[in-house]
Amino acid sequence: MTDAYPELFRHARELTLLQSCAAVLGWDQQTYMPDAGADLRGDQLALLAKLAHERATAPRLGELLATCEASPFEPGSVEAANVRELRHGHDRAVKLPARLVEELAKVTTAAQQAWQTARSANDFPLFRPHLEAVMRLKREEADAVGWTGHRYDALLDEYEPGCTAAELTPLFAGLTRNLAPLVKAVADSGVTPPDVLARDWPTDRQKLFAESAAAAVGFDFAAGRLDTTAHPFCSAFGPGDCRLTTRYKPRAFNEAFFGVLHEAGHGMYEQGLPADQFGSPCGAYCSLGVHESQSRLWENQVGRGRAFWRHFFPRLRQAFPAATVGVTLDQWELAVNAVRPSLIRVEADEATYNLHVALRFELELALLDGSLAVADLPGAWAEKVRAYLGLAVPTDREGCLQDIHWSFGGVGYFPTYTLGNLLAAQLMRAATAQLGADTLDASVAAGDFRPLLDWLRTNVHGHGRRYRAAELCRQATGVELSPEPFLTGLREKLSRLYGVC
Amino acid sequence: MTDAYPELFRHARELTLLQSCAAVLGWDQQTYMPDAGADLRGDQLALLAKLAHERATAPRLGELLATCEASPFEPGSVEAANVRELRHGHDRAVKLPARLVEELAKVTTAAQQAWQTARSANDFPLFRPHLEAVMRLKREEADAVGWTGHRYDALLDEYEPGCTAAELTPLFAGLTRNLAPLVKAVADSGVTPPDVLARDWPTDRQKLFAESAAAAVGFDFAAGRLDTTAHPFCSAFGPGDCRLTTRYKPRAFNEAFFGVLHEAGHGMYEQGLPADQFGSPCGAYCSLGVHESQSRLWENQVGRGRAFWRHFFPRLRQAFPAATVGVTLDQWELAVNAVRPSLIRVEADEATYNLHVALRFELELALLDGSLAVADLPGAWAEKVRAYLGLAVPTDREGCLQDIHWSFGGVGYFPTYTLGNLLAAQLMRAATAQLGADTLDASVAAGDFRPLLDWLRTNVHGHGRRYRAAELCRQATGVELSPEPFLTGLREKLSRLYGVC
Repeated sequence: MTDAYPELFRHARELTLLQSCAAVLGWDQQTYMPDAGADLRGDQLALLAKLAHERATAPRLGELLATCEASPFEPGSVEAANVRELRHGHDRAVKLPARLVEELAKVTTAAQQAWQTARSANDFPLFRPHLEAVMRLKREEADAVGWTGHRYDALLDEYEPGCTAAELTPLFAGLTRNLAPLVKAVADSGVTPPDVLARDWPTDRQKLFAESAAAAVGFDFAAGRLDTTAHPFCSAFGPGDCRLTTRYKPRAFNEAFFGVLHEAGHGMYEQGLPADQFGSPCGAYCSLGVHESQSRLWENQVGRGRAFWRHFFPRLRQAFPAATVGVTLDQWELAVNAVRPSLIRVEADEATYNLHVALRFELELALLDGSLAVADLPGAWAEKVRAYLGLAVPTDREGCLQDIHWSFGGVGYFPTYTLGNLLAAQLMRAATAQLGADTLDASVAAGDFRPLLDWLRTNVHGHGRRYRAAELCRQATGVELSPEPFLTGLREKLSRLYGVC
Repeated sequence: MTDAYPELFRHARELTLLQSCAAVLGWDQQTYMPDAGADLRGDQLALLAKLAHERATAPRLGELLATCEASPFEPGSVEAANVRELRHGHDRAVKLPARLVEELAKVTTAAQQAWQTARSANDFPLFRPHLEAVMRLKREEADAVGWTGHRYDALLDEYEPGCTAAELTPLFAGLTRNLAPLVKAVADSGVTPPDVLARDWPTDRQKLFAESAAAAVGFDFAAGRLDTTAHPFCSAFGPGDCRLTTRYKPRAFNEAFFGVLHEAGHGMYEQGLPADQFGSPCGAYCSLGVHESQSRLWENQVGRGRAFWRHFFPRLRQAFPAATVGVTLDQWELAVNAVRPSLIRVEADEATYNLHVALRFELELALLDGSLAVADLPGAWAEKVRAYLGLAVPTDREGCLQDIHWSFGGVGYFPTYTLGNLLAAQLMRAATAQLGADTLDASVAAGDFRPLLDWLRTNVHGHGRRYRAAELCRQATGVELSPEPFLTGLREKLSRLYGVC
């Protein structure tokens, strides 16, 4: 027992290191790898994945866990949490037959290629058999892992451990019920945000400005970088090395700027994890929902707030004199909080974003339990877009072919985006209550983000995966996760900016 | 037997892939990694090294080799060569006790840190105990590997398989005997190259110009990159992905430009290896000496030649109108062929470079057999610099502390630089004879490097490690490696430029 835990920790750390090597290769693939290197990179990553899988399913890992469980650590301790989470991951890994893992890898690789082609060509029938194969295998995966409530729970558990469809269903229902009318009220308000974000924003200056904002809020560039990629992401390799990426468009200031704040939020979470626990669950992020709460908190709760721009707007005018000519702080705040129903999730605003997620959640539930056939997906998609966003879907490219997730097998992934949005608002409310609304506002308006970051370090980052997401939320905010803080905060802002209620 | 070879190939390929993952991490470490990521990177690389060592010494590898050797492939075939070279590598790996491998890793890590400090502080006594420990372990390593002629052979064999001290000794003696008087004659010639290289060369234009030259000679940027690092290098990950680096100084045009040609030469070799043999010795470079022959061929034999600048000089004037003002092609050729005895090897010119290597070879031989004590190294170094280069060594920083090699355990590495210089000249002579001197000159002067590159692809690159270096030289040039083509070529050029003979 005395020796089992250190060996368990070393085993987990080696697995984590292998995955972090793969993360470096993945980052390079998106940033600097020459085109002709793609096949080699695939072979390198496949080998690292194989080695990681061997370690995740190693019988020795099972023995070590059993020994640790036989004389358990004090409940609530870091050690107990590590044993609990390593058991969870090991059980999931060994339950998946090697045959299924291989078939999933093969089918999703083909499905991703087919999806790319299908999206460009707006050809859903091309993607359809691939999506059918993915759904079939995901059902098999869920059954292999095991479930009690809904088959979906077994898949959701990979991204949001412990969360269930039964919890999500009323939550999404509450959101759609409240958000759809709110969005309509904004559209009917007669207030039109100025089109300043689509002026000419020199990209070299965008880069400097976004970097300085990321540094100002607390992303540590001595332990990280910001590079340019086709699709923005944050990839943390481990203590001291976290990579952010974004893309700059001359006529869309908001994309790169809020994208960088978003990725910096992910990055600051990673930079705040307990380094001495690196390699074990308590040194890793809690769940994808909690991860997303950190990106959304900085992007939306902070970055689209009045106090934030009280600090940054004068700096923005200095850096972009031409693009900001004649724009007031009021107009700017309205511009960065433009609410417009749109077809594409990744371009959606704070108010409509969760509607995009809700329809995906409902559709993937139906696809998984077979009540919706893949062939009927485009129609079902269009119907929900009409109901939630009041829009017609002109092509599948702007409909059910827009997201990569299902093609890589990421069924159960989408809800974590909304969980993140809700938790971000709830954490912000708790931080505001504890730090004092005026104090927090004043520090943000003075460009001092340390009090808020420190609060997050203490209440979220520093725990790693010691608590599951639901428990983390209770400990940090005092209450269960609920859509109420998100909806209340959004209503307050939109009523101020658009005169709706 | 039928199954043994494919399994052997897969085993070798997996080992190569692990090493290529480490190469990506190493490249990133030198180019983009944030400072705070150093510890994590060390842990990642240590794990990959451990996994690679496990595969290199795996008993299963020994069994597969024995099976393949029991019913051998046709002599001279690719399969036979792969079995031969994999046996060579496996035997070397298993002969080294794990204890020695670990101690070497530990001692050389400490020695490299001590060397950096000692070099900055010009403090040889600080480095001395570390070098003593390295030399002691390298002696142990040589004895574990086994040797017949000189203990040095066992170390040299790691970098230049099959080469021996007995072959190198007369070769270096011939070089020093011929080069030292030649260098003196140039110094006494009264001809002084113009100081144009130290004018103001804008670094952004240097970058574009060096990149376009590397692309022109044949480095494939769709399968490679050029980045900036403190110390230039070429790192090939495998088919389709080869990374070059350099550094740009505004007042030293030659450093980046010839540095890029040099690294591009390494890179084109890697890009020309048989991709279908990737993972096996026949898909890898032959030896470090052959690798260096490819860099030197493009840097010196081509890049410092008249025909090369007949093509590039007009382009140089266009790209750098201010820096090239009033400079003729004759003056430029003289400038890039300046011969000046100097203290630092990496800054040495074509004529003096091998003298630097000769003294290192002689000193490391003596250090290894104990006829020279580490404590007496600075004095011995100064003595040889006076004898070969006619210079006094003012400080150890410019003497025996200048190179990193011994600190990382690279005893037996230096001679490969000279082997490369000699082979480059001999290959160039053979290519010239086969392609026709006038035809080759005309194509180079027209900016068409394809005929020469094709010749190298056929006679060097395409063979991988199928033949040992000595055999490769015989096949490509018809004769044994000799200093004569190098010396003759150099004499011809220097007599034309400096009027010496």
